[in-house]
Amino acid sequence: MKIIIIGATGTIGKHVTKLFESKHEVVKVGVTRGDYQVDISSEQSIKIFFETIGPFDALISTTGKAAFKPLEGLTGADFKMGLDNKLLGQINLILIGQHYINPAGSFTLTSGILSDDPIPGGTALSTVNGAINAFVKGAAIELKRDVRINAVSPGVVEDSPSFFEAFAGHIPVKMERVANAYYKSVMGAITGEVIRVF
Amino acid sequence: MKIIIIGATGTIGKHVTKLFESKHEVVKVGVTRGDYQVDISSEQSIKIFFETIGPFDALISTTGKAAFKPLEGLTGADFKMGLDNKLLGQINLILIGQHYINPAGSFTLTSGILSDDPIPGGTALSTVNGAINAFVKGAAIELKRDVRINAVSPGVVEDSPSFFEAFAGHIPVKMERVANAYYKSVMGAITGEVIRVF
Repeated sequence: MKIIIIGATGTIGKHVTKLFESKHEVVKVGVTRGDYQVDISSEQSIKIFFETIGPFDALISTTGKAAFKPLEGLTGADFKMGLDNKLLGQINLILIGQHYINPAGSFTLTSGILSDDPIPGGTALSTVNGAINAFVKGAAIELKRDVRINAVSPGVVEDSPSFFEAFAGHIPVKMERVANAYYKSVMGAITGEVIRVF
Repeated sequence: MKIIIIGATGTIGKHVTKLFESKHEVVKVGVTRGDYQVDISSEQSIKIFFETIGPFDALISTTGKAAFKPLEGLTGADFKMGLDNKLLGQINLILIGQHYINPAGSFTLTSGILSDDPIPGGTALSTVNGAINAFVKGAAIELKRDVRINAVSPGVVEDSPSFFEAFAGHIPVKMERVANAYYKSVMGAITGEVIRVF
């Protein structure tokens, strides 16, 4: 299987990459590192990437950023950054990628716990995560040629200790559990699901 | 109570207005009609409005648009329109309005059934609705001075027969039930809730 991992060099992406690369052709994509570079906030950059890479069987996105800031000081511009990057960036991977993916292929996006279980400063991320979860549900019934789509929604992960204080009382999730959620999405048959790992 | 209704002249807004205006001071806001005009896609327009209107006790938004179009032909620009209008437009009402609302006031936004129960052509709306529902959950724990926030998520409403065909098998919701959901949000004590009316 030819599997594209957007964010392959990141905290979660490197574990997902490790899980797939012994048995599959993995195309590792980063912002500055990896085999290829893509700026997901640019439709042009995404189009050039798909044209270069050709048909594929699965795309996993473990990338995307949004503002982490108290609501009181949050501006429209702060919010827009997350909508343009983690949300529209991941969505554009699907809107464009649907025309390049092989039949019966799969897309797996990344949302996160904050849409279900919010924390102070996390409202922009809650919003983006809720949007991704709902996008996956809507897109699953619209994608053609048996293409599937799911989202993985991880809690705070054990490899990100700098976030532990903000996620007061949350039990950090093992990287192995998180990586296996992506594996389940790609190798299984579910579609339109949010795989919650928390 | 001084209650601002953004979208007061719309399909849902006019029923909500009717429910409140006999006993409360209702400020009716539209895009071109109503007592005041606000373009929710412009932060500047929202700021000027709040400066003009002064402190208030409740803000209800029953406005916002997003693309309705099959996923296959959906572009980043189509998506962005809904993110800028129904999503960021309603969010900016809160980001800016939180600095003008009276203590113990309330915000009530409008999402919709498609994040829970998608239909073909509805992916952009599903996404925006899921984002609003998650925003409300995140913002509820961050708002100060006992200010509350909820979302009303209506199904297809009886006053919109042009949508009935797209919502195959959905039972249109009575306007009275929808209007009362906003009443419950404003007059009750709940916060961070999505009031589903379908």
